[in-house]
Amino acid sequence: MKKLNKITIVGVGLIGGSFAKAIKKLGLAEEVVGFGKNESNLQTAIKLDVIDSYSTDIAEAVKGSDLVFLAVPLGVMKSVLNDMKPYLSESTIITDGGSAKSSVILSAQEVFGELPKNFVPGHPIAGKEKSGVTAADADLYIDHRVILTPTATTSKSALNTVKQLWSLLGANVEIMNPQRHDEIFAATSHLPHLLAFTLVDMLNEHEELGDVFQYTAGGFRDFTRIASSDAIMWRDIAMYNSDAIVKWLKNYSAAIENLTGLVESKESETLYHLFNEAKKARDKHIVN
Amino acid sequence: MKKLNKITIVGVGLIGGSFAKAIKKLGLAEEVVGFGKNESNLQTAIKLDVIDSYSTDIAEAVKGSDLVFLAVPLGVMKSVLNDMKPYLSESTIITDGGSAKSSVILSAQEVFGELPKNFVPGHPIAGKEKSGVTAADADLYIDHRVILTPTATTSKSALNTVKQLWSLLGANVEIMNPQRHDEIFAATSHLPHLLAFTLVDMLNEHEELGDVFQYTAGGFRDFTRIASSDAIMWRDIAMYNSDAIVKWLKNYSAAIENLTGLVESKESETLYHLFNEAKKARDKHIVN
Repeated sequence: MKKLNKITIVGVGLIGGSFAKAIKKLGLAEEVVGFGKNESNLQTAIKLDVIDSYSTDIAEAVKGSDLVFLAVPLGVMKSVLNDMKPYLSESTIITDGGSAKSSVILSAQEVFGELPKNFVPGHPIAGKEKSGVTAADADLYIDHRVILTPTATTSKSALNTVKQLWSLLGANVEIMNPQRHDEIFAATSHLPHLLAFTLVDMLNEHEELGDVFQYTAGGFRDFTRIASSDAIMWRDIAMYNSDAIVKWLKNYSAAIENLTGLVESKESETLYHLFNEAKKARDKHIVN
Repeated sequence: MKKLNKITIVGVGLIGGSFAKAIKKLGLAEEVVGFGKNESNLQTAIKLDVIDSYSTDIAEAVKGSDLVFLAVPLGVMKSVLNDMKPYLSESTIITDGGSAKSSVILSAQEVFGELPKNFVPGHPIAGKEKSGVTAADADLYIDHRVILTPTATTSKSALNTVKQLWSLLGANVEIMNPQRHDEIFAATSHLPHLLAFTLVDMLNEHEELGDVFQYTAGGFRDFTRIASSDAIMWRDIAMYNSDAIVKWLKNYSAAIENLTGLVESKESETLYHLFNEAKKARDKHIVN
């Protein structure tokens, strides 16, 4: 891939910052420019060698950019696209890191009238429960999957550029239909996050348990680690992938109702079977 | 504490094996004897320096023992107590490591007619998702909590001996009412384990998702780690602490139903509040 001239990172937090830092580290662009509204955050990003420069003016930030990476919460995608629209050149590639894809695609359609050829929706499957630019890590994407969900109008060349860029960052790129993406991640990521938040809230609210967290051990710590994730990001995921999430919450509720009945009626063999199938599936598919 | 002569470990797996190994390491007993039905497991325990000797004959194993530690699944507690009853001396202390306390106390009452003075029910809050003697670790209990739930008839001297023993192993001992123990651990431990088993089962069974585990990341791996726990142990916990577990499953179902409604009707602010309260509670109470 030929070296890019200018890359703009919209939203310099964990995801945008790690992307920027890796591009700088590998020298894949002449200039990595950060955009955001919090100037002290952008100054931190410069100090941490995450970006070369920044602007709090969207016109300046995206002007002449070869590629704009949107790494803002889903709830801000549409307004950011709207703000930058007048200043984008025809050749600027737009890609993003949003955890739900249909809503971002819909936003782009609404903002641009029709979906731009250079729009390549994406989702890097990497993260930490810690957010913010101070957690940015140039190696975050190495050996991690990045899902790209091109639309019917996405050009091959834009798709290839984004694909190559992620590959150079060490990621394993996979192309997927946006609806299928949203369905899979509602089940495997959004649902467990919501379940973890809900468990911590419930224990926190039941005062008859007293200071119950003191009795939790390693299993609880692991189970609820994702409940330390950023609340704004997860509010937006719940809002912008709501259909698929509601579907899986309902599937899960039905499974819990079934389990509750088995425990109530002490169905020993069925309980063993359920737990053992889960253990076998996890041990087979997931390392440690 | 004066050095004990003979300690018997009934069930030489992770919990019993770690207890035995620590006692041997610290030289707290003249002899640590393992009892079990699987002779090759007991031979492994000797090779790994977990026990000094073993017997597959319960009479021989408990005869003259100062302390018997029951570390078998909850479903076997009663039959083990029944088998050893004829061979116990008046002074032998009986303690256990079961994850639910009311059911073990009930079993002891049924077996002995009245609760023995030397019976000290207990629960070390330590574990790994790996089970078995090969996972036994002399340091497993260091800085971990051990809950003792003495009954109305438990003698002070038996309680003190067990308390001191655990303290010497590095554990922080706490005395608690058995019902309160069962309630707290239904909420903080049993419930999350059942939730994790259920999520893995659900994803495993929904074939339309395809090989969905390949798309899971670190958050899912952590969330479901406890679903790799021993299925027999967890079947027994579900069976022997069923009342408290059913109560918390129902509380949790109600919380999920509430959340589902909020996602369906896109109650942005309430969702943010719920997620942020959970994040704050977890960040406050639980380190990493």
